[in-house]
Amino acid sequence: MRLDANWVSGFTDGEGTFYVGINRNKTMTIGYQVLPEFRIVQHKRDIKLLYALKNYFGVGVIRVNHDDRYEIRIRSIDHLTDIIIPHFDKYPLNSQKKYDFIMFKKVLSIMKDNRHLTKEGLIKIIDIASKMNRQDKQKALVIKQLLGQDKVHT
Amino acid sequence: MRLDANWVSGFTDGEGTFYVGINRNKTMTIGYQVLPEFRIVQHKRDIKLLYALKNYFGVGVIRVNHDDRYEIRIRSIDHLTDIIIPHFDKYPLNSQKKYDFIMFKKVLSIMKDNRHLTKEGLIKIIDIASKMNRQDKQKALVIKQLLGQDKVHT
Repeated sequence: MRLDANWVSGFTDGEGTFYVGINRNKTMTIGYQVLPEFRIVQHKRDIKLLYALKNYFGVGVIRVNHDDRYEIRIRSIDHLTDIIIPHFDKYPLNSQKKYDFIMFKKVLSIMKDNRHLTKEGLIKIIDIASKMNRQDKQKALVIKQLLGQDKVHT
Repeated sequence: MRLDANWVSGFTDGEGTFYVGINRNKTMTIGYQVLPEFRIVQHKRDIKLLYALKNYFGVGVIRVNHDDRYEIRIRSIDHLTDIIIPHFDKYPLNSQKKYDFIMFKKVLSIMKDNRHLTKEGLIKIIDIASKMNRQDKQKALVIKQLLGQDKVHT
């Protein structure tokens, strides 16, 4: 199964997720780890489609998501920056997910400069990620408070 | 917003539904009405996308689906036969939904010949529709029994 580039973007508009995880991690100086992730979840009956997507992008890990659902997941900063972002820049999304993609790109550009390892960079990422569709806004607020700044930038 | 043809197929693989309704209708000689339908449902935040799809296909009705969800719906046999089917023949689906599409085409070809108005044609449609993903298989069995034939063709 060979996938068309625009088909991939249409399918992502329906089924894809751009997500930025921000998790407590005591081994990091700043105390939190930023984990951007692009994923597409499918019922196992369409697992071949996940392999076709992996083949299309040339990267990605296929794993169980939940019960009989599987996902392709891309977390590597290099793969996200060099492969995923250029794809969606060239073959644009049309749904409101395109705004998640814009935020996602902003987070990755901060990470590319290693600014997510500073308090200022991390707070900026939290502010950006809070505007994304699937983010846990309450958790973001709590982390910001813990970081000693509770003002929400808008 | 102008939509790419392959994007439309990718988005349909994610969000579209091919459905064949079979409903009691006493005004019809055979007693049942066959209602094939192609639809895409979206949250209202993406209603513009439904209008872009309507613009792309040149046909379709946009209406409330449920709560804050809207849909584009195409039910006209002519529009389905002359516009929707040729689109997906030319820009193929890749998910398991492609098998729904194949069944959907078979139902429409029977309807084009008006065979859905005969008992044999209707039973054939019920058998085909029963293989589709979102169909109510129990209801199909009941209708077949009422039509005096309870053997399920496989």
